[in-house]
Amino acid sequence: MSLIVQKFGGTSVGSIERMRNVARRALATQKAGHDVVVIVSAMSGETNRLLGLAHELTKVPEAREMDVIAATGEQVSAGLVAMAIQAEGGKARSLLGHQVRILTDDAFTKARIKAIDSSKITETLKRGEIAVIAGFQGVDHHGDITTLGRGGSDTSAVAIAAAISASACEIYTDVDGVYTTDPNVCPSARKIDRISYEEMLELASLGAKVLQIRSVEIAMKYGVPLHVRSSFSEAEGTWVVKEESALEEVVVAGVAYDKGEARVHLVGIEDKPGMVADLFEQIAAKHMSVDMIIQTATTGAAERANITFTVAKTDLARGKAFLEEVATSVGAREVRYDEDVVKVSIVGLGMRSHAGVASKMFRILANEGINIQAIATSEIKVSCLIAAKYTELAVRALHDGFGLGQKT
Amino acid sequence: MSLIVQKFGGTSVGSIERMRNVARRALATQKAGHDVVVIVSAMSGETNRLLGLAHELTKVPEAREMDVIAATGEQVSAGLVAMAIQAEGGKARSLLGHQVRILTDDAFTKARIKAIDSSKITETLKRGEIAVIAGFQGVDHHGDITTLGRGGSDTSAVAIAAAISASACEIYTDVDGVYTTDPNVCPSARKIDRISYEEMLELASLGAKVLQIRSVEIAMKYGVPLHVRSSFSEAEGTWVVKEESALEEVVVAGVAYDKGEARVHLVGIEDKPGMVADLFEQIAAKHMSVDMIIQTATTGAAERANITFTVAKTDLARGKAFLEEVATSVGAREVRYDEDVVKVSIVGLGMRSHAGVASKMFRILANEGINIQAIATSEIKVSCLIAAKYTELAVRALHDGFGLGQKT
Repeated sequence: MSLIVQKFGGTSVGSIERMRNVARRALATQKAGHDVVVIVSAMSGETNRLLGLAHELTKVPEAREMDVIAATGEQVSAGLVAMAIQAEGGKARSLLGHQVRILTDDAFTKARIKAIDSSKITETLKRGEIAVIAGFQGVDHHGDITTLGRGGSDTSAVAIAAAISASACEIYTDVDGVYTTDPNVCPSARKIDRISYEEMLELASLGAKVLQIRSVEIAMKYGVPLHVRSSFSEAEGTWVVKEESALEEVVVAGVAYDKGEARVHLVGIEDKPGMVADLFEQIAAKHMSVDMIIQTATTGAAERANITFTVAKTDLARGKAFLEEVATSVGAREVRYDEDVVKVSIVGLGMRSHAGVASKMFRILANEGINIQAIATSEIKVSCLIAAKYTELAVRALHDGFGLGQKT
Repeated sequence: MSLIVQKFGGTSVGSIERMRNVARRALATQKAGHDVVVIVSAMSGETNRLLGLAHELTKVPEAREMDVIAATGEQVSAGLVAMAIQAEGGKARSLLGHQVRILTDDAFTKARIKAIDSSKITETLKRGEIAVIAGFQGVDHHGDITTLGRGGSDTSAVAIAAAISASACEIYTDVDGVYTTDPNVCPSARKIDRISYEEMLELASLGAKVLQIRSVEIAMKYGVPLHVRSSFSEAEGTWVVKEESALEEVVVAGVAYDKGEARVHLVGIEDKPGMVADLFEQIAAKHMSVDMIIQTATTGAAERANITFTVAKTDLARGKAFLEEVATSVGAREVRYDEDVVKVSIVGLGMRSHAGVASKMFRILANEGINIQAIATSEIKVSCLIAAKYTELAVRALHDGFGLGQKT
């Protein structure tokens, strides 16, 4: 008998009828001989409703109270799904973050899990019940309620799967798996059957929205096999697993794009040692995360340089005044912004052993007449910043150019 | 410096704007030099919305899961009211039932408080913060969430006031106090300034809806002065306090009526010893609560009697088949029901020392041509069952007859 964790997102529990569907699926898994732990998100729309109430009261709600309110969404889902299982004739029991004891730090609204006590879950399973656990929430060492940030239920599910040594963590969602790229952009996008944690991590951080990044990190750390699949079909989805030799034959596993970044261009800053460090230290102190960075010498006066970097658009909105101040402090003559950009990336473990992947990417983009504004690479990914209007063209060209449309 | 508990019901926290109002009142009380503990209900309509979701799933939701869901209403209110106080520049912290540790038994949906740990509340107050506590909820010794039944926030407030030795427990509601009778029925109804626990208890159990019965019982047991007042005005409301000599001059304190009961009439049951005991034992075993009981011998055959009693209309709806079965078992020839009845009552500590109060009540009703179908008395109340169509007439006649309209 094995132990399966099943996580259902907001759309999968978005109505009473869909909760019945969740109940039937959990019961079918139990009937097939498994112990089942279900993790639920808030019903779709509920978290936004709750945050809306708080923001009606105040522009800057206190984070601790925000979490008290936000955690109720998952609490209601957990109670209702437990009831739905009982209504189908099964045995179930809801467990909240503080009841399981999902211990987190006290960084309200973006807490991190420190430890999970598995005893209540184990007791519940021993009684033959399905444990229905409220995702997204935990409790700090004071007994205060915390939440894990948007998409935190994925993290709850994987962390719980790790804590109870589940044989798999199934992530039920409204798509049927992880695709080689966004099917809305590229009709020849293909569902991936198996992908490595590393590749999934890059795809998630580069804009693929199917899994929260931290959940993949935890799965990788503890070796929890993830199965991303549709809650509306029985078909197998995508397994996210440890790197295997078979995977290496594929050079590029997927193409991702991210419209969430904006380009900042500082013109003519003083080119003295420590100036760039000073610049990015100040930015980091504002918790603004910088992605791609390019430094070029200006063509004009000596001892001046230009710096281009990207920041999240959400950070830019609240940080323009600050950036201009910082720019002045490093002697920049001008600050330019460009929000009409997109970061297109290719990801694949195979790049490690295959030379020329990056140059092939540049060639494919050049052949389409697309100008590359910035480049960032890691061992298993290459990202290019390009004008946003080329998004679809670039994604399709890369997807076809690396042969992702056909099974390899 | 004294300690004040303020309880706000569903209409008092029914919107963001009203929550601001609650915040301002709590802060004004704090500014006047008091430590303040606020107890909140769910926003009006919220509990029904949550119960509605559960009932969409199943006709008989499991009580444990019902409480998991229902408790979220007060949780959201507590978080929002704490935020509202912060938005007004004050310091506040929400506390849930399991965080305070309001320990209850495990009778889900109608749990009873066993103990309250006052340490978290005291710590919060010591930091100069207003403690905003979610009403209606507690936690059992397993750590499972429980609720105290409809109106349970009154009970939470009074029990907490007792636990922390508050100098008063203010119950904020949408009326400005306890009235000598329902002002909607009797225009000369007068707000009562002071009333004893015993009288309030009778008025509450006889149909006055302003306070939950159990909350008055707890206030009486621990001597917590209650102040029932409007959340929409600054005026003093009604103080519910220990019996004082001054109160005894008033013979009748108030007139109440209750349309919630129905009359059951069993015709011609066998008049043998133990038959009536047998009848009411069977009814009690079904948790059907019986109020007034009258037994009369029939005019016909010997050894036959008629029994009339009243039960709650809600119990009657689900219990007719059962009552007919029981009636047959005691040999009744016929069962008749009458739901068009009302129980009109007068309440007053003064009755103890004043003879003739009951007969005066009967005379007043007779003068209006109202037939009395059943009578029940206690030391401080007299109740008469009459046809429902006479409700307003009877209430007004009794109110005037006992001189309640003018201050005594």
